[in-house]
Amino acid sequence: MTVHLVGAGPGDPGLITLRGLELVRSCDALVHDVLVAPELVAEAPADALVVSREGMEQERVNALLVELGGAGLEVVRLKGGDPFVFGRGSEEALALADAGVPFAVVPGVSSLAAVPAAALVPVTHRGAADTVTIASGRGADGGEPDYEALARAGGTIVLFMALRRLERVARGLLRAGVRADTPAVVVSRGTLPDQEVASAPLADIAEAAEGLPSPALLVVGEVAGVGSRLRAARRSALVPGPS
Amino acid sequence: MTVHLVGAGPGDPGLITLRGLELVRSCDALVHDVLVAPELVAEAPADALVVSREGMEQERVNALLVELGGAGLEVVRLKGGDPFVFGRGSEEALALADAGVPFAVVPGVSSLAAVPAAALVPVTHRGAADTVTIASGRGADGGEPDYEALARAGGTIVLFMALRRLERVARGLLRAGVRADTPAVVVSRGTLPDQEVASAPLADIAEAAEGLPSPALLVVGEVAGVGSRLRAARRSALVPGPS
Repeated sequence: MTVHLVGAGPGDPGLITLRGLELVRSCDALVHDVLVAPELVAEAPADALVVSREGMEQERVNALLVELGGAGLEVVRLKGGDPFVFGRGSEEALALADAGVPFAVVPGVSSLAAVPAAALVPVTHRGAADTVTIASGRGADGGEPDYEALARAGGTIVLFMALRRLERVARGLLRAGVRADTPAVVVSRGTLPDQEVASAPLADIAEAAEGLPSPALLVVGEVAGVGSRLRAARRSALVPGPS
Repeated sequence: MTVHLVGAGPGDPGLITLRGLELVRSCDALVHDVLVAPELVAEAPADALVVSREGMEQERVNALLVELGGAGLEVVRLKGGDPFVFGRGSEEALALADAGVPFAVVPGVSSLAAVPAAALVPVTHRGAADTVTIASGRGADGGEPDYEALARAGGTIVLFMALRRLERVARGLLRAGVRADTPAVVVSRGTLPDQEVASAPLADIAEAAEGLPSPALLVVGEVAGVGSRLRAARRSALVPGPS
């Protein structure tokens, strides 16, 4: 009779946690994001109620969780990445808390570091960056991100959901003072078999990443250069990638 | 004959990934951080070489990985949290790349969001924060973090390894313009059975967290208030925590 907000990880089904998979395998009801790996959804018991949230407003998802949890079911709310990082999991938790429905949070591997890592880009690296700032390419309420704040933070910039407005985002960062030759990388469908990587200086990244499919993540900073160096080494060692 | 840089997660052994555990269970050699859960180290095959990096300089760890991987062993380098987030995993990857030893990165659940989540603190929340800046309380080269940059970034501030200098860090953030009444929370030994949480306005957080054991993580921002609200709801619902 608990609603478990579970992170499914960045895409690759092997990146769910043990605890998360155990909960999926023993739940009465599974409410999952569209982007969650079908292999994980298929792990729910045959008699479990399985609901995709596709097309549901957030309010409707909240109400569904309250209803299922309130009915005494063991519910897993399986979310892409980590439920408490750009996942609106905390809104779901508040709705459950307000309704007096027991809930728990099971963190997952967030795309914020796992997707860059799938392109061998670390988000921190000694001598390159000891600070990371993460934001959404959409910004609050669907507007622009605060480019000035991102530029002033220094260190690595990681932007979710920046793909469709990559040119605007790059221009915004350049205007805010990020250098045109700062290494940048876009990782499309990171950790999945059809992952693609585009890397270029910030001034050219929009062109380099043109046509890549979503979801994608943009990383701007010297760490992108470390990633290029690691990818080159892996290619020359003829090692199969990504891990 | 690959060195796998594997994230063990934030402490709770149930938070390792499936892929990570599979690799531990089939490795020839395991080189692990001191803080990695002993339950995970115990999953290595009985005949595997198991080495704790306790007391080893980073250079020595790099050399050991090159040596073991170069000898043709399947090596797991099991690191706390995520290998590419404040983990120096990228330095190990570069050492392997430079030596021509095949390597792969298996991301893990990073403490940066999982430890706050263990105290029900989301790092982003609509209306509270849509940006997160992560830094080390030690700063680059063991110095102070750049408080001005952290304050200017806006949104949530997450600081690793800030416990022993909490008073300095809080003072630095206050001087840099973060408001004294900004909610703050320290999570000590997050996700472990003896986890402790101290929460207070930034001006009082050092006093509130006095005596808590490491490792610990500091979160500053309105999201800490969301966490307090969620913890209060969970207490009143008499739900066992942490998840």
